[in-house]
Amino acid sequence: MGITLYLDRKSGKIAVKEPQDVSSLANGFYGKMEKGIVYLQPEEAMYMLDIRNAKCVDEAGNTHTFNDLASLFLKKKKLLARYLTFKDWRDRGLMARPSSEAEGNYGRTSAKRYKGGEFKIDSYALQGVFFLDDLITVIDDEASGKELYEKYWIGQFGTYKAAHRGKIAKLDIYETIYLLKHGNLSLKNAKLEDVWAEADERIKYFEDMYSVYEDWRKKGYVLKTGFKFGTHFRIYFPGASPVRENDEWIHSKHVVHVFSRKSKMLISEWSRAIRVAHSVKKTFILAIPGKKLDIKVNAKRPRLDFLLYHRKKGGIETPKDGQPRFLMYSLSEDEYIGGEELAEALFESKHYGLEVLLAISDRESSITYYAVKRIDLPQSDYEHFEIEWMQP
Amino acid sequence: MGITLYLDRKSGKIAVKEPQDVSSLANGFYGKMEKGIVYLQPEEAMYMLDIRNAKCVDEAGNTHTFNDLASLFLKKKKLLARYLTFKDWRDRGLMARPSSEAEGNYGRTSAKRYKGGEFKIDSYALQGVFFLDDLITVIDDEASGKELYEKYWIGQFGTYKAAHRGKIAKLDIYETIYLLKHGNLSLKNAKLEDVWAEADERIKYFEDMYSVYEDWRKKGYVLKTGFKFGTHFRIYFPGASPVRENDEWIHSKHVVHVFSRKSKMLISEWSRAIRVAHSVKKTFILAIPGKKLDIKVNAKRPRLDFLLYHRKKGGIETPKDGQPRFLMYSLSEDEYIGGEELAEALFESKHYGLEVLLAISDRESSITYYAVKRIDLPQSDYEHFEIEWMQP
Repeated sequence: MGITLYLDRKSGKIAVKEPQDVSSLANGFYGKMEKGIVYLQPEEAMYMLDIRNAKCVDEAGNTHTFNDLASLFLKKKKLLARYLTFKDWRDRGLMARPSSEAEGNYGRTSAKRYKGGEFKIDSYALQGVFFLDDLITVIDDEASGKELYEKYWIGQFGTYKAAHRGKIAKLDIYETIYLLKHGNLSLKNAKLEDVWAEADERIKYFEDMYSVYEDWRKKGYVLKTGFKFGTHFRIYFPGASPVRENDEWIHSKHVVHVFSRKSKMLISEWSRAIRVAHSVKKTFILAIPGKKLDIKVNAKRPRLDFLLYHRKKGGIETPKDGQPRFLMYSLSEDEYIGGEELAEALFESKHYGLEVLLAISDRESSITYYAVKRIDLPQSDYEHFEIEWMQP
Repeated sequence: MGITLYLDRKSGKIAVKEPQDVSSLANGFYGKMEKGIVYLQPEEAMYMLDIRNAKCVDEAGNTHTFNDLASLFLKKKKLLARYLTFKDWRDRGLMARPSSEAEGNYGRTSAKRYKGGEFKIDSYALQGVFFLDDLITVIDDEASGKELYEKYWIGQFGTYKAAHRGKIAKLDIYETIYLLKHGNLSLKNAKLEDVWAEADERIKYFEDMYSVYEDWRKKGYVLKTGFKFGTHFRIYFPGASPVRENDEWIHSKHVVHVFSRKSKMLISEWSRAIRVAHSVKKTFILAIPGKKLDIKVNAKRPRLDFLLYHRKKGGIETPKDGQPRFLMYSLSEDEYIGGEELAEALFESKHYGLEVLLAISDRESSITYYAVKRIDLPQSDYEHFEIEWMQP
């Protein structure tokens, strides 16, 4: 026999009263116990009806199906995404609790520390022509184009992967602006303002894109297009050179994607970018430019969905003998997420000393998880995160 | 010694006159010969300066560098993208000519023929609740949810890849509308108009997305989310079933991405979707909904960039002893392409009996190629194409 849920239609409270049901739920860390009665969250009650063979009755003795019950809570935001991600976590035998139970600082995060550094460029004079429609600068002085490429890995001299072939250097829009600002580049046919205005009109959130580029470049990192890896930039650690060493190309291991606070990103598009990076074995770095947040965290109005307990050696963690590990952010495939909104959620989880786990429910109710780890990039004003596909 | 280019600054004409230069260029199928003089296109002249060690002089005897020459043509759209894609093709030892030279019908395309079919569904009554914020319908009548899933692969009954686990069926927004229109689904809390209005507000180009879904579904194909493969839908051929056969899951081999005529797609984002499909070994199908085009093709104002000759057994094809194979569409990473614009380009190439080769120049001047093959889907009013990554 399954569990019996008692629904109070007026208050929407769902109670479990039979002693054997109460002890079964208490052992599974479902609901909240008050005077021998367990009160369930909507998602927990839905789980009982869907998976645990429960039945639900109201005060008049009417039976309520899954849809009857869920219909009472249809005004809750993303009810089904929350239910399906909760269900998936529970189906894995792991514990999930309401995020409003988070308190204090669990100290379960550790930022990934990245090298700091400084980029210095000799101030020799460079002259180029800006191809406005292509957002590319060409330097046709062979010697300086070659030096710029070989010494600083700025521009592409000659041909891609065959630098000896050809005499011109091509600078992309980020390299062009960087050198106009910090190098000694001058353009025969344009000024910094012209280049900036054109880029700003053509590339979405260009200011944020460039800020991230400059932030890393200034620290000695090499940033080139991430086109082949489905992201905005790929990145090499300070000291990387485009010249083959021992006949081997240097391979980048990280890609950087810029998420402007002002932008809204479709979850499925965002996920696609992470997938490409994963398939080519690169670490996906999300950069959120702009000032770091300092917001109020209110336990009663959590931005995140569930407090998640994970595994430990030889078992699982529970609210009784363990600590939560993640805060779950329940999302769905066709949903948009804003840069600021994500930044706030990440701030909240940092406040509790927990990592954020993005749980994306697709149109088929299959759940994909991404773990988000904070990066500590010295001297950066921006926030950076490693995002990694995970099977919990 | 390199070739000498003679620039007429007034007309912008670039001529090659020395007999040995003329014969070298004629042998390589560069430029157009008139009375013993070869006149070069800007991209060809740029190639000579960059790669072939040419020098360029004007009538006054002044020398012109790559940038000097290119500067004369800066008003041409995407000059550098055109140059770089032309260069890459030439660097491979292959021939490229101006697209304005295309004429007649080369008969070098063959549409991929896909099965036609018909989808019939028993008209038993289904009732569900629509979760507006999640764009999902739940059917909690176990028997009909299960039958719908097993017989037609509509909805996800139980748990993804574990249908026995759970009692409810989840229908995505496309399945919901399809059954509201063509099945016998009714919703307790919404009508077709409500569902449509919400979807239309939340999902970009929803009408086009749904049209494509319906177009294939009606022919018996099974369409499920393509979330895991970075596209709008994945697709199974008529007759596919979600029930394991011989303990093996059926795997989809095709994914469908919808490109609305009204939309503008960033090349790098588009390419990302093709890349994910390629990395999971699926055929990428581009669907362009809406009425098929019938436009005027004007040889003097080509929409495509170069007429490409490819390889043949034991050698290459040339304008002398072969036929062109592709029309090149030169694009760059940070460019937007419109659905209608692409449809027109594809129409133009069909007119000439050639395939379109998309050549995308990234910010580092590396070129990525995608071949576009027309699909013949019987009884479809829309245009469909297979897009495949290619190394020429």
